[in-house]
Amino acid sequence: MTRLTRFSVAPLSGMTRQLAAVASARAAPDLVITGARVLSTYSERILPEREIWISGGRIAAVKPSGSYRGDAVRYDARGGIIGPGLVDPHIHIESAMVTASAYAEAALLNGTTTIFCDSHEIGNVMDVAGIEAMLEDARAAPLSIFLTVPSTVPATSPELETAGGDLTPDKIAGLFDRWPEAVALGEKMDFVPVTMGDERSHAILKAALQRGRPVSGHVYGRDFVAAYAASGITDTHEAIDRDIADDLLEAGIWIFLRGGPPTTAWHSLPEAIKTVTELGASTKRIAVCTDDRDADDLADFGLDFVVREAVRAGVKPETAWAMGSLHGATRFGQDGEIGGLGGGRRADLVLMNDELEPQSTWYGGALVVDGRRITPLLDAALSDRYRYPDAAYHTVHLPAALKLTPDLPAGPGILNAIRTELPGITLTHDRIAIEPANDWSTLFDRHGLCFVSVVERHGKSDGNVGHGVLSRFSLKRGAVASSVGHDAHNIIIAGTNEADMRLALAAVAETEGGIAVVADGVVKAHIALPIAGLLSDKRVPEVAEELRALKAAWAEAGCSIPFMGFNLIPLSVIPEIRITDRGLVTVPAMALVPLFEPD
Amino acid sequence: MTRLTRFSVAPLSGMTRQLAAVASARAAPDLVITGARVLSTYSERILPEREIWISGGRIAAVKPSGSYRGDAVRYDARGGIIGPGLVDPHIHIESAMVTASAYAEAALLNGTTTIFCDSHEIGNVMDVAGIEAMLEDARAAPLSIFLTVPSTVPATSPELETAGGDLTPDKIAGLFDRWPEAVALGEKMDFVPVTMGDERSHAILKAALQRGRPVSGHVYGRDFVAAYAASGITDTHEAIDRDIADDLLEAGIWIFLRGGPPTTAWHSLPEAIKTVTELGASTKRIAVCTDDRDADDLADFGLDFVVREAVRAGVKPETAWAMGSLHGATRFGQDGEIGGLGGGRRADLVLMNDELEPQSTWYGGALVVDGRRITPLLDAALSDRYRYPDAAYHTVHLPAALKLTPDLPAGPGILNAIRTELPGITLTHDRIAIEPANDWSTLFDRHGLCFVSVVERHGKSDGNVGHGVLSRFSLKRGAVASSVGHDAHNIIIAGTNEADMRLALAAVAETEGGIAVVADGVVKAHIALPIAGLLSDKRVPEVAEELRALKAAWAEAGCSIPFMGFNLIPLSVIPEIRITDRGLVTVPAMALVPLFEPD
Repeated sequence: MTRLTRFSVAPLSGMTRQLAAVASARAAPDLVITGARVLSTYSERILPEREIWISGGRIAAVKPSGSYRGDAVRYDARGGIIGPGLVDPHIHIESAMVTASAYAEAALLNGTTTIFCDSHEIGNVMDVAGIEAMLEDARAAPLSIFLTVPSTVPATSPELETAGGDLTPDKIAGLFDRWPEAVALGEKMDFVPVTMGDERSHAILKAALQRGRPVSGHVYGRDFVAAYAASGITDTHEAIDRDIADDLLEAGIWIFLRGGPPTTAWHSLPEAIKTVTELGASTKRIAVCTDDRDADDLADFGLDFVVREAVRAGVKPETAWAMGSLHGATRFGQDGEIGGLGGGRRADLVLMNDELEPQSTWYGGALVVDGRRITPLLDAALSDRYRYPDAAYHTVHLPAALKLTPDLPAGPGILNAIRTELPGITLTHDRIAIEPANDWSTLFDRHGLCFVSVVERHGKSDGNVGHGVLSRFSLKRGAVASSVGHDAHNIIIAGTNEADMRLALAAVAETEGGIAVVADGVVKAHIALPIAGLLSDKRVPEVAEELRALKAAWAEAGCSIPFMGFNLIPLSVIPEIRITDRGLVTVPAMALVPLFEPD
Repeated sequence: MTRLTRFSVAPLSGMTRQLAAVASARAAPDLVITGARVLSTYSERILPEREIWISGGRIAAVKPSGSYRGDAVRYDARGGIIGPGLVDPHIHIESAMVTASAYAEAALLNGTTTIFCDSHEIGNVMDVAGIEAMLEDARAAPLSIFLTVPSTVPATSPELETAGGDLTPDKIAGLFDRWPEAVALGEKMDFVPVTMGDERSHAILKAALQRGRPVSGHVYGRDFVAAYAASGITDTHEAIDRDIADDLLEAGIWIFLRGGPPTTAWHSLPEAIKTVTELGASTKRIAVCTDDRDADDLADFGLDFVVREAVRAGVKPETAWAMGSLHGATRFGQDGEIGGLGGGRRADLVLMNDELEPQSTWYGGALVVDGRRITPLLDAALSDRYRYPDAAYHTVHLPAALKLTPDLPAGPGILNAIRTELPGITLTHDRIAIEPANDWSTLFDRHGLCFVSVVERHGKSDGNVGHGVLSRFSLKRGAVASSVGHDAHNIIIAGTNEADMRLALAAVAETEGGIAVVADGVVKAHIALPIAGLLSDKRVPEVAEELRALKAAWAEAGCSIPFMGFNLIPLSVIPEIRITDRGLVTVPAMALVPLFEPD
């Protein structure tokens, strides 16, 4: 049997005669799913009992229940509601720390059958080779995965940070030309350079627009919206409140409302959706997305959860499901293939209850989730996953000798510290006046600090290490380290002492990437991320379990922000102060500052 | 100065830096249109006073009125409403009997700035050469004209009719590959063969779908909808009532509600729109279109009229205007370029009054209509129109000798007559029992008949002439003839006597195509259509005037159906009986029948 992938369903261009024959009842369907109500994303209505005739993995017809009288395999779906599989228009698979093939398991359990993925993390580590490996992974997955080509790699410049990838306009053009699933340019997140007319940024926009590919965006701040739209950006998922959502919509930008665990800054949907619920905007150019998700959150906070959050915010269920399926498909020109139960479409279907909770999922007509459990068919597909090339398993390159902690300040002065607080995305620049001390730990006790270092791991420098201190990170003892460190993904280590920091770094390096929690010379928790230092090669349930253990150790260590926030500390495009392998960077000044400024 | 065409505005890919600079107020706009309310097709709201900053023919930003404080050319639009230029998603330019360049005048006066045109009439006459000439014409026009590639040429088969064109799957593929403006396959109107799996029809669908191009359709009858959708058709403009409109929508088919003169069968919008107003469907996949329009109706029944008809039917104005602009743009993947006032879009704008009546139009930032009159700029563009190649001016090929009337029946029997009645699209098969007579005129007086003949004019046969009789056509005396005779466009002549029929044919042939009304040996009215026998080479106001004179003579002659209905008499895909150069054809039997069947 061939592997279950998106290619298990033949292109419509070669299937029209067969489907017309089935729809005309001149040929028998492979499967008839009967008895359910149908959620129409086209008209935004729930239609009474229908049955769906499926042939070759596509929808041949949707008819009143009982219409098909011949012999056929039937699935009794009475009592439920059938809608199209969900379509996530913006997601980074790497955030879940699993491969594309593994990600499919969680997606299908959530009723998601298509994702538009921006693989810019692996691009930052491995350049085009990483993106292309993930595209091969995507092609082998039991899920429809489109690429929005990473547009902003590196996130800043070599002066401020050493990244593994450097996606020039030419390389981006090459990705478009070689990969038909590259349907759009990924989030052009450097919105300040874009609005200021930066040459490289606009050359990248040009590579997409010249090819007729739309451009995805990511912008903060109402003042930037007009120039951003004028630059050709036509979607964003970073609409954090009602007013900017309204501005974006009026500027012609499709909005992907982002939902996530409600305690996090990712959950901006409830505010942004007020452009609809309070200001009366049409929903037709609004979709929902997940953006980033920890592996252990995938089960509870999938796109189905985000759809239900839209309902909770006041959108009618039929419209909310359309925002989770058809609208994203339409935005990317795929509404003839997915997003609704029209004739000729892929039979990507979700059977749900009245609360819009997915119970069963068909992917290209194949039953992959039944009664909230994966089927043996899907289990087999997930057990035989794509294997990344060897180079992807060797991306941690460290010099023999490294100094992980800075020199002790010799006199009084100012320490430029990074204050970490929830929600943990923006970081405050603490200018701490210090008096001399005999050792760092005395200073740490006085001011509530610990070390933070970023170690260049792409083998591109002579062992760059950036040294800094965190305030209010609350690490009680030991060290934590991660090879996920946005966006350049050098290794970030926080610790109270150099020995534990070395051990944490060694634990991460030993598995060619990972996250480790160390205390008193002992590794308390560790997750291996051997692919590009970003991804596990295990399945989602295993990774989720490892992650839960890691999070427990992380909390036990006292860290004041979760590791998804910790991993963002090096991201030198968000205010106010960050740390990279080149040292401390202030934003938006984009300037390197010393750790210690003597009086 | 260069000609005003759609190429007067450079592609967005090369303009993003300039537009970002203007939107950020780092560079000056070329034009600021200030003071009007804005009709947002994105949110479907009317926004309070705004101003539009235009640069290089594109929208740089939409800001609150008075935001721009520097020097700029300003247009005071206070009191009005500005919306995007209208987008007609389905139209046949040839119906207006003018060239694409000439058509622009009427379109712009109606606030229409983009059309999706299916040039299947000229394709029926001149094959690929005609379509490509019209594409050159379209490129030279002051209007954005996309092609939906004619899909069903000839409409039937060589056994039933002799057409000038024969668009094979390969020729259609070639059109897609050579012309980037060929964004879709045009209306696949042979819905019976499509649903029955006809090989050539599906090979044509394949040529489009393989290239990622959507397929437009045209279907009658609820029974055909499922198989039609399963064949990959994703829009239609032939939704004639509420229930089929609802079926089409749920089958995943975009609906273009067609409006026209309210007394005609073209005006199906009021019935079809009930899927929204009575059945509660979302409007997001519904647009409006004109399809066909006589030149003299263009002023009163343009797309703006159709939008207002949607309002009259109960749709809110903001939504109706979106159905007339953004929705069609979205359906064809052009919403990043047209259909709304987003940043980076073409500055195709309409200033209208509160009744949605267009007053002024900007095409790519150029003022082309001001206060309901065309500007000198547009007048200049219209005065220097594209000239079709010489071959297009020589498409009427007639043999020296022709017999225009049939032999007189020698005994009693049945005469298979074509009954013509309003609205004139379907034609009834009258089986008339006759007794012998000395001449045709005796028979005609007894039964209320006249001659009808179709003369092959492509030079492809040995002078084929199909002979028949019309009942209830009410022609008092003389003859009428037309080189427009759907879809093969052979010359159709009706008359009471052979002499006047010869004169009418000669009048049409003398101008290499046209329509003539003759009585008592005198040409009473005549319009020259020298391009492919379908199009005048004059401007719309002149053609409209000629057409009014022709229609007056047509009515004076007593004809019971208008000439747009008369021209459809040869269209052998509509029930019940038609006439082609091969003779009488019954539909849907698709069989040739003799004029006279002796007892």
